Amino acid sequence: MAPASPTPEPTSDRPRAVGLLGGGVIGAGWAARFLLNGVDVQLYDPTPSSVDDVLANARRAYARLTLAPLPVEGTLVMCTSVEDAVGGVELVQESAPEDLELKRALLADADRYAAGDAIVCSSTSGLRPTELQSAMARPDRFVVGHPFNPVYLLPLVELCGGDATSPKTIERAAAAYRSVGMRPLHVRTEIDGFVADRLLEALWREALWLVNDGVATVEEIDDAIRYGAGLRWACMGTFLTYRIAGGEAGMRHFMAQFGPALAWPWTKLMDVPELTDDLLDRLVAESDTQAAGRSIRELERARDDALVAILQGLRGVETGAGETLLAWERGLLGAAPRSPRRVPASWVDYNGHVHESRYLQAFSDATDALLGRLGLDPAVGSYFTVETHLRHLLPLHAGDAFHVTTEVAGVDEKRLRLSHTLHRDSDVVATADQTLVHVDVASGRAAPVDQAVRERVEQLR
Amino acid sequence: MAPASPTPEPTSDRPRAVGLLGGGVIGAGWAARFLLNGVDVQLYDPTPSSVDDVLANARRAYARLTLAPLPVEGTLVMCTSVEDAVGGVELVQESAPEDLELKRALLADADRYAAGDAIVCSSTSGLRPTELQSAMARPDRFVVGHPFNPVYLLPLVELCGGDATSPKTIERAAAAYRSVGMRPLHVRTEIDGFVADRLLEALWREALWLVNDGVATVEEIDDAIRYGAGLRWACMGTFLTYRIAGGEAGMRHFMAQFGPALAWPWTKLMDVPELTDDLLDRLVAESDTQAAGRSIRELERARDDALVAILQGLRGVETGAGETLLAWERGLLGAAPRSPRRVPASWVDYNGHVHESRYLQAFSDATDALLGRLGLDPAVGSYFTVETHLRHLLPLHAGDAFHVTTEVAGVDEKRLRLSHTLHRDSDVVATADQTLVHVDVASGRAAPVDQAVRERVEQLR
Repeated sequence: MAPASPTPEPTSDRPRAVGLLGGGVIGAGWAARFLLNGVDVQLYDPTPSSVDDVLANARRAYARLTLAPLPVEGTLVMCTSVEDAVGGVELVQESAPEDLELKRALLADADRYAAGDAIVCSSTSGLRPTELQSAMARPDRFVVGHPFNPVYLLPLVELCGGDATSPKTIERAAAAYRSVGMRPLHVRTEIDGFVADRLLEALWREALWLVNDGVATVEEIDDAIRYGAGLRWACMGTFLTYRIAGGEAGMRHFMAQFGPALAWPWTKLMDVPELTDDLLDRLVAESDTQAAGRSIRELERARDDALVAILQGLRGVETGAGETLLAWERGLLGAAPRSPRRVPASWVDYNGHVHESRYLQAFSDATDALLGRLGLDPAVGSYFTVETHLRHLLPLHAGDAFHVTTEVAGVDEKRLRLSHTLHRDSDVVATADQTLVHVDVASGRAAPVDQAVRERVEQLR
Repeated sequence: MAPASPTPEPTSDRPRAVGLLGGGVIGAGWAARFLLNGVDVQLYDPTPSSVDDVLANARRAYARLTLAPLPVEGTLVMCTSVEDAVGGVELVQESAPEDLELKRALLADADRYAAGDAIVCSSTSGLRPTELQSAMARPDRFVVGHPFNPVYLLPLVELCGGDATSPKTIERAAAAYRSVGMRPLHVRTEIDGFVADRLLEALWREALWLVNDGVATVEEIDDAIRYGAGLRWACMGTFLTYRIAGGEAGMRHFMAQFGPALAWPWTKLMDVPELTDDLLDRLVAESDTQAAGRSIRELERARDDALVAILQGLRGVETGAGETLLAWERGLLGAAPRSPRRVPASWVDYNGHVHESRYLQAFSDATDALLGRLGLDPAVGSYFTVETHLRHLLPLHAGDAFHVTTEVAGVDEKRLRLSHTLHRDSDVVATADQTLVHVDVASGRAAPVDQAVRERVEQLR
């Protein structure tokens, strides 16, 4: 929803290798995000847990998330010490449990063994960076980089420096995170819980009260969010939503209208519910009911599918997290080497086949790629397809790797004929012969193409 | 994310006419939702405001939201009294300002003049139904139906009865709301603020503290939501998200891990920030910065586009509000008369043109519709496209109404040839000649089609 910002160039800032301390849900999420963005990962965790599971989830999600060519996956090395994990990396990311002394010790160790130009980050949800960096010999290179689960899909990462953090460290961390498709948010004031967790915590406390008081079940509370305000929160947050609700009269009018309600008894936030056995028993039972027998793995996949769908939807309207996705994809398009393109699940129709229109989409993308090399000035004129002859020879399935080759079959003053072939390994899956006509933008009619463009076409031929 | 529920049959419960009391943002939103679902609206508001603007937004949003044929729009009648507005309707919806005495008087009036079998609902955000219904002669037919802005897009409506409300009234209101694409949530315990507004209010209070304390600007706070947890809230709410974060160890483990943080100083919810001139000035100034010169109308459209994109994304994975959309569309597909199909915004490529592959999609849908009438048994065999010859004659734009006509151009033992034409009014926009081959499911090879199917093709021809 924000005004367009310049497209970042992610790959130039992408670290070659990172060292991860901690491999729980968050650490494994970092591993997945970095590996799938082509970054080598050195991971240290005394009790290595579910990195493989999270990585499998992430691979599945990325196959649905983007059509852009992903880089070749980074290499994962499991290390047996902090020293091994941080050796030779450009960025260290600590994701240990929320225990100040444990984190302080790990970060001091990382500082001791990491290369002089590496930065050292912590995933803490809310511990203060000034305290975390206090045992480091070089605290200036430390910054909090607080991500959100699942780390490989949610773009937000809160950056918060302590008293000794240098501005350069914050800049470098932001660039590194941006290079792997994230959206850094600089929290300029050091407070417990930063910004996002304060908001999460407020909602979570109120939700616990509602369960505690027997007002609603956990499923009803989730429904009260996801069918209503949750949809707005995914695109606009809270203030811009309310600005709109205030109408042309503006934010001051909105506050005059709804400010008084702040004093009404609409929350029980003045206190924290006691986590009694009774409350815990109910929470657990209601959560089991809501899960309806689905395993965590099933729930993770359902969550990831929904997040991918939301992100792709927001990309289409270039809003919020969709803008972040778009910038990341544009970065990927500029990077080499590329993995082959794969058939996304969204191309499959209700019969389980790749929809015939998606074959044409692949050919059309190839046409666009070729036109992009001709140096056409879109303000003057452009080629438009007038005719396509499509032949299907073999079926294509979701997940299949494929590539399209294109030949210039003919060119004259106004027309361009292209022959595309869609390959899977050595098989020819489909072909398309297309006739395009050059149209003058001013007149809207067919018109001869510029001589320079014509020459470039002849060269390609 | 919930287990699949039986598809509701919305149209049978759809009211013929409703009476709306109040035409502000919420009342106008109700008007738009009912009108676009083919329900006649009688609206009373002593100072009629922006119904036309909201209706224009809603028409634009629905054109993007669904390909299903919308019913013919209902008729809007502006009334000069409560009596006129509620006369002859099946449902009354009061959306006056949050003033208990005003609402109580309006509802008593509505009760006096409405037909005996009408139900009477209030859009209140949090006033108690028992108090609202206390002046009605027939309080049993009253229930709170609390919607969320924009009412024409967000599916949630909280239902909450008072002491005198009959169960039948709650059932009837739920069916009526469901018939216009909404998702009723029965709040079984009568509390101030119901469920959703308690959660909204908690987050909003914390957000105001963050601005008050100068920790973050309103734009940074919105970003902390929409790039992170807001994306999860749109699909899963808060409890199911945390269940997953707890992993296989379950909800009790999660609470043991994160329960202690509830006692940490991560919120300032114990108090309400005073709305000083200084705080208001900053809120207003930061909100202006965030809006970056965009008008409320522009922001509304950006919001609606994003919500449509999220809803369509969630429909694709049959999750949450996407399931609600799907059920509504299925209901619409069963209803007549139909509006012509329109070009959705999602068919437009980065150049602003309808993507050539989407023309083929429209033709492919026409092929599917024809195949659906042939009585093919998908367990035995089906027709597959082997060749398409596509011609583009005129450009098509987002929002254009169009229809496709299909002729059977030839049929033999194994092959079927179809000629499609895409029309916009009397113009021919594009054509497609397709050759399909009948494939036997067991062998995966071309095979003669069943004689009965062949005869139905000859009849269609």
